[in-house]
Amino acid sequence: MLILMRVGATDEQVQNVCAVIRDHGHEPLVLPGQDRLAVGIPDALTPEERINLEMSIGSLEAVSKITHTSRPYKLASLEFHPERTVVEVKGVKIGGGNFVVMGGPCSVESLEQFQQSAEIVRASGAQILRGGAFKPRSSPYAFQGLAEEGLKIMKQVGDETGLVTISEVMSPDLVSLVAEYVDILQIGARSMQNFPLLIEAGKSGKPVFLKRGPSATIDEFLLAAEYVLSQGNPRVILCERGVTPLDRAYTRNTLDLAAVPVLKEHSHLPVIVDPSHGTGVARYVSAMSKAALVAGADGIMIEMHPNPKVALSDGAQALTPEQFTALMREINALAKFLALNVLG
Amino acid sequence: MLILMRVGATDEQVQNVCAVIRDHGHEPLVLPGQDRLAVGIPDALTPEERINLEMSIGSLEAVSKITHTSRPYKLASLEFHPERTVVEVKGVKIGGGNFVVMGGPCSVESLEQFQQSAEIVRASGAQILRGGAFKPRSSPYAFQGLAEEGLKIMKQVGDETGLVTISEVMSPDLVSLVAEYVDILQIGARSMQNFPLLIEAGKSGKPVFLKRGPSATIDEFLLAAEYVLSQGNPRVILCERGVTPLDRAYTRNTLDLAAVPVLKEHSHLPVIVDPSHGTGVARYVSAMSKAALVAGADGIMIEMHPNPKVALSDGAQALTPEQFTALMREINALAKFLALNVLG
Amino acid sequence: MLILMRVGATDEQVQNVCAVIRDHGHEPLVLPGQDRLAVGIPDALTPEERINLEMSIGSLEAVSKITHTSRPYKLASLEFHPERTVVEVKGVKIGGGNFVVMGGPCSVESLEQFQQSAEIVRASGAQILRGGAFKPRSSPYAFQGLAEEGLKIMKQVGDETGLVTISEVMSPDLVSLVAEYVDILQIGARSMQNFPLLIEAGKSGKPVFLKRGPSATIDEFLLAAEYVLSQGNPRVILCERGVTPLDRAYTRNTLDLAAVPVLKEHSHLPVIVDPSHGTGVARYVSAMSKAALVAGADGIMIEMHPNPKVALSDGAQALTPEQFTALMREINALAKFLALNVLG
Amino acid sequence: MLILMRVGATDEQVQNVCAVIRDHGHEPLVLPGQDRLAVGIPDALTPEERINLEMSIGSLEAVSKITHTSRPYKLASLEFHPERTVVEVKGVKIGGGNFVVMGGPCSVESLEQFQQSAEIVRASGAQILRGGAFKPRSSPYAFQGLAEEGLKIMKQVGDETGLVTISEVMSPDLVSLVAEYVDILQIGARSMQNFPLLIEAGKSGKPVFLKRGPSATIDEFLLAAEYVLSQGNPRVILCERGVTPLDRAYTRNTLDLAAVPVLKEHSHLPVIVDPSHGTGVARYVSAMSKAALVAGADGIMIEMHPNPKVALSDGAQALTPEQFTALMREINALAKFLALNVLG
Repeated sequence: MLILMRVGATDEQVQNVCAVIRDHGHEPLVLPGQDRLAVGIPDALTPEERINLEMSIGSLEAVSKITHTSRPYKLASLEFHPERTVVEVKGVKIGGGNFVVMGGPCSVESLEQFQQSAEIVRASGAQILRGGAFKPRSSPYAFQGLAEEGLKIMKQVGDETGLVTISEVMSPDLVSLVAEYVDILQIGARSMQNFPLLIEAGKSGKPVFLKRGPSATIDEFLLAAEYVLSQGNPRVILCERGVTPLDRAYTRNTLDLAAVPVLKEHSHLPVIVDPSHGTGVARYVSAMSKAALVAGADGIMIEMHPNPKVALSDGAQALTPEQFTALMREINALAKFLALNVLG
Repeated sequence: MLILMRVGATDEQVQNVCAVIRDHGHEPLVLPGQDRLAVGIPDALTPEERINLEMSIGSLEAVSKITHTSRPYKLASLEFHPERTVVEVKGVKIGGGNFVVMGGPCSVESLEQFQQSAEIVRASGAQILRGGAFKPRSSPYAFQGLAEEGLKIMKQVGDETGLVTISEVMSPDLVSLVAEYVDILQIGARSMQNFPLLIEAGKSGKPVFLKRGPSATIDEFLLAAEYVLSQGNPRVILCERGVTPLDRAYTRNTLDLAAVPVLKEHSHLPVIVDPSHGTGVARYVSAMSKAALVAGADGIMIEMHPNPKVALSDGAQALTPEQFTALMREINALAKFLALNVLG
Repeated sequence: MLILMRVGATDEQVQNVCAVIRDHGHEPLVLPGQDRLAVGIPDALTPEERINLEMSIGSLEAVSKITHTSRPYKLASLEFHPERTVVEVKGVKIGGGNFVVMGGPCSVESLEQFQQSAEIVRASGAQILRGGAFKPRSSPYAFQGLAEEGLKIMKQVGDETGLVTISEVMSPDLVSLVAEYVDILQIGARSMQNFPLLIEAGKSGKPVFLKRGPSATIDEFLLAAEYVLSQGNPRVILCERGVTPLDRAYTRNTLDLAAVPVLKEHSHLPVIVDPSHGTGVARYVSAMSKAALVAGADGIMIEMHPNPKVALSDGAQALTPEQFTALMREINALAKFLALNVLG
Repeated sequence: MLILMRVGATDEQVQNVCAVIRDHGHEPLVLPGQDRLAVGIPDALTPEERINLEMSIGSLEAVSKITHTSRPYKLASLEFHPERTVVEVKGVKIGGGNFVVMGGPCSVESLEQFQQSAEIVRASGAQILRGGAFKPRSSPYAFQGLAEEGLKIMKQVGDETGLVTISEVMSPDLVSLVAEYVDILQIGARSMQNFPLLIEAGKSGKPVFLKRGPSATIDEFLLAAEYVLSQGNPRVILCERGVTPLDRAYTRNTLDLAAVPVLKEHSHLPVIVDPSHGTGVARYVSAMSKAALVAGADGIMIEMHPNPKVALSDGAQALTPEQFTALMREINALAKFLALNVLG
C-alpha cells in the first residue's frame, strides 16, 4: 500500500499517517520526492488488514490518494492457487481443457417442452441442461417461472437423460430447495452481489455457477466468487454474460469477451461465456459462441427453445433446435481443430 | 406498439405478424411506406399484454424492430396516478414539499457510537436516523455489521430520541426481523433487482426506501418500485445514489442528479438523493446536497460519523459532526429561501 | 416516424401535430388507443426529412416521445446497398471473404525501426503495414510522432517492400499531405466525429479506414461513415477498437466484438478489429485476434514493434516480432480451417 | 511511481527493473513484502519522465502493475498554480466568484433571429452571447450552419449589443477566421481530443472554452486543457456538458455535476456547466442550472431560441425567451442569496 500525501503536507501530517500505520502493527517507509512525499507499507497485507488500514488512513489530513499494490481477492487468485480448478459434476468436467455446452430454454414451461429441449441438447452432444424455475424479471407483470413445479420437471428430465442440470436460485432461503433438485446452482447477474445468497450457496457445497453483474468490475466479480469460496466451497464456475451496453439499440448487453483471458490470467476458476444474454439477439449467438471458444473460454451457456416463437420469456435470444444443432456441429469441429493445432 | 418490418418483407410475412396480433385480441394497422412497412397496434396495452405480444412477435421472420409507445410501469407512473405520494412515518412527511434529511453512520458500531450520532442528527434538526446493521460489502473480509444486535441498538436509540429510523434489509427472510425494529426498510442499490426481497418488502406494509442500482435505467428503477407497489404497499420512496462511473479515479459513482426532474416528471413517488454514495468523497457531499435540494429532490441521505477516522466502514465518505451540522445550517437557510422565492 | 402524445392531450394539440406534418408534405395517421393517442407518418422519410420533422415536432405541446421506424443512415446501409463492398488497394482486397492483417508499430520512429517492422510483417504473410507519423496523444508531453519525416519513411519502406501502407491523419489541412505518401488514410477513434476531417478524407478519393469512437453508438459510427460516403468516396473500411471500459484496471478499453455481426448485418462495408487498442495489453491480443476472425471480421490491425521495451509509444500493447509471427501462423491455420469448413 | 512485481518474480527480473530506472537517472527503492516485491521511485517525475519510464518498464518481465503517485497534468493543476484563474473578456470576468450566463441559440440562422436572441439575452442580464456558425452534426444530412456568414452576423450583433460572443471552431485551419469575428473560441465535446485544434487555439491567444468529451476522464479533460496552456495561452475555461448516458431513453447525456467540485479541487481554471446538452431536454434545464450554481460552478451555458419550434437544430433542448428570462430571474435571486449567506 502506498499513501500519497498532498503537496505541502506538514511534517506533523506525515507523522500522523506513520503513527496510524504503526498502530496497525506495520512499519511505514517515507518516500521523499521533489514536490511531495509518499508513505509506503512494504508488508504484504491480508485483505482484512488492507481494508482496515484504508479506512483508518483515508480520512487523515493531507492524504491525497491511496494506491494498492495487490489485488483484493486471495482464494480466487491464480497467484495464490496456481493449480487450475476443474469442477466435476456427474462425470462432466468443467475447466481443464474441456469445452462444455450448457443448453436449454430460458424457462421450464412444461414437462413436454423441457423433455423436447433435453432431447435436442443430448442429441447434439451437449452435456448440461439449463432451465429456469424461478425467473428474475425486470417487470412484475412478466412470467415468473413455474417455481418448485419447474424444479421437479428438471429433476425428472435430468434423471431420464443423464444430463447435468443447472438452474438459478434467487434467494438464500431457497438454496436448499433448488439444491435438492438440480446439480449446479446458478447465481444470476442481478444477484452477483446478493451476499446472503452467495454465503448460502457456498455453504450448500453444490457447484456454483456465478454470473458477472452488468456493471461489476473484475475485482468485484472475483470478490463475489471469494464469498462462495470462503465458505469452504471450492466449486465455483465464473460466467461472463455481458456488461451494461453503450448502445441498447442493437444488442441487449456488451459482451466483454476479453474478460476471458483477463480472468484466466488472474484466477484459477473455470470461465464460461453466455452469448445469449451477452448479445440478446439469436442471430449473433453463433458468432460469439465460436469467438468464446477461440478466446479460451471453458464453455458456453446457450438459450435454445423447441419453438422460440411461443417462448414465455426471452424468445428473441433463443436459438431454434436447428440453429442449436448447427452451432454444436461447428463448435465440435472447431474444438477438434484447436486441440490438434494447439492454438493459444 | 409499432412493429417495423425489414425492407423487402413479403406479404406473407406481414400477414403473419397481423395474425399473431389478432390472436392476442387486437386489431393490427398496416402502415405502408416508401421502402418498408410498419404494423401498428392502436390499442393501449397493459404491461402483461405488451410483454406477451413482444415475445410472440419478436422472433417472427422479417421483423426488424419493435418500438413502444408507452412506458412499462403503471402503478409508479404519474400519468396514471396524478396525485403525488407523501409517505408519512411517525409524523415525518416524505414528499409533498418538505425536504427531509436522513443522517447517521454507515454502520451501527456500538450503542455509544450510535447514541452520539443520533444526538448530532437530532440537534441539527434532521428527522431521520440511518444506520446499517446488515452491511452489503464487496469483500467477504470487510466488516459485515452487528446484525440483530445492531437493530436492537437502533430501536433503543430511535425510542430514546423520537427520530424515525431506517436500515437496510438484504434478504427476504430477514424482512420481518428488520421490520420489527426500524421504521423504514431500505433496499440497497445492489438489491434493486432482488425480486423476492422487493415482494417481501412490499408485503410487509412498511415504508420502503428503494435505491437505484448502479447500472439501472429509469424504467428498470420504476419497475423495481412497481414490484413493491404491486403487493399493495403504496409507501415507496425512490433514491438516486449514483450510477456506474465513467472515471473511478476521482469519485466512487457518477451522481445522476438530472434523474430527480426525470423521476418527478414520470412518477408520483418522492425522490431522495444520496450524495455520500453518489460521490464517495466527504469533501463533495455538501455541494451535491445543496444541488439536490435546488434540483427538486424531497430530501437527502447523508453519512455522518462521530469520528470518521475510526469508522468501521465507508469512513472516506462520512462527514464529521461539525461538517454535518454546518451542512444542515446551509440546507435550512437555502430551503427557507426557496420556499419564500418559489423557485423551480 | 411515430409521435406518441401524452395522456390527456387535447384535440387541439393533436391537430397541431397533424398540421405540422402536413406542412412538411406528409399525411398524418392518427392512431387512437385506450389511454392515449399516437400520430404516425407512413411515408418513408429521407434522413433530411426525418431530422427536420423531428425538430419541428419535438417541441410541440403534449408530445411525449418520437420514435423512428428506420435507421438514420442510407449510403452505409446494407438494406439500401445489398452488395457488400470490397475495398481493393494495390491488389489487396479488404472485404469479400479475405482476412487481412495490418501490422506494424504504433509510431514510425526511424527508418531502421520501420524497415525492421516491415520485414517482419512481410515475412509473416501480412499484407498491410501500419505506422503513425502524426500521433494523437492524451498528454502534450508524450512523443507526438515524426510528422512528414515519418510519412517519407513510410513511403520509402512501402515502395521497397510492396506492402500497402496505412497512417493516421488528424486534421483536414493535412489530408492531402498524408494522401501523397500512404495508401490508406486512417481516421482515429478520437476523430470519428471530426466532421471537417471526414469530409476532406471523403474528397481525397483515397480508401478511408474509420475507427469507432470510444463512446460512439452504432448509428453514430455509421453516420460518420456516411459523411465520407456522401462525398462520393465509396472506399470506407470500418474498425472496431474498443469502447469506454467499465473497468480500467485490467484493460484499456472494452472490445465490443459483437459489433462485428451487428455491423455486418446493417452495413455493406468491411469491418476490421483492432485488438491492440481494444484491450491495451499485448498478452490478450492473440485471443482477441482469433476471436475476431471467427466472429466474421474482415481483418485485424495489430501493433507490433521490433523491440517493445524501447517503443516511444504504446509499448505495453505491442507484440514482439516472435509473438506477431506466431499469431500469423495461428491466424493462417484457423482461416484455412474456416474456409474449408464453411463456418458462420 | 510504484512498480508492483508479480508473485515469484526472480532477483534478476527485479534487478532488471532497477537497472532501467537507473538508466533514466533515478534511484529505485526496493520495497520487500510478504509475498511479493514492489519497486518505488521516490523522485518527483515530470510528465515526460513519467511517460517515458512507464513505457520502458511496462513491458519488462514479471511487472504486474504500475501505479502513479501524481497526476499527469501540471499547468492545469491547482497544486502547482494555487491562484485561481479569472478569464477577463471585454470586462466580463469568468471565474473569481462571478456567475456568468452564456445564452443564445444553437445555430445562428439569420441576422433577425440572432438579433432577437441577443436582445433577450441582454435584457435578462446575461453577459455572453452564444451561437453556432460551424455546426458539428452527427448526420451529414442535418443543417451544418451558416459558416462565415454566421460569424459576420455574430460580429455585427456583438458590436451592436456590447455582449461578449462565443462560437465553436471545429478545425485548426479555421481558428484564425473564427478568432477574427468572436471573442471566445469554443472547442466542442467531440473535438476535446482534436490535438491540432487545441494547439492552434492555444497559439491564437484568444480565450478558449473547452468542453469535456462524452467519455473523457477528468485526467484526459485536464490534459486537453494542458495542450492549450502549454502553448502559452493561460485563458482556458472548462465546461462540463454531460457524459455518455447510462440510459438514453430520458436524457441525451448524464450531467456529471460532481465534476464541478472535483475540477475545482484539482484545477485553478474556471468551470462552466452546460445543462442544455447535459440533459438534452428543455424541461430539465432550469433545475440543473440552479444546481450548477449551488454546486460551485462559475457559470452556465444555455440554449435559447426566439422560437424553438422552428429552430434548425437542437430545438428540443432550447428554452423559449420566456423560460430563459424566468430562469435568469431565479438565478439572479439565488446568486444574491448565496453571496449574502456565504454558502459553500
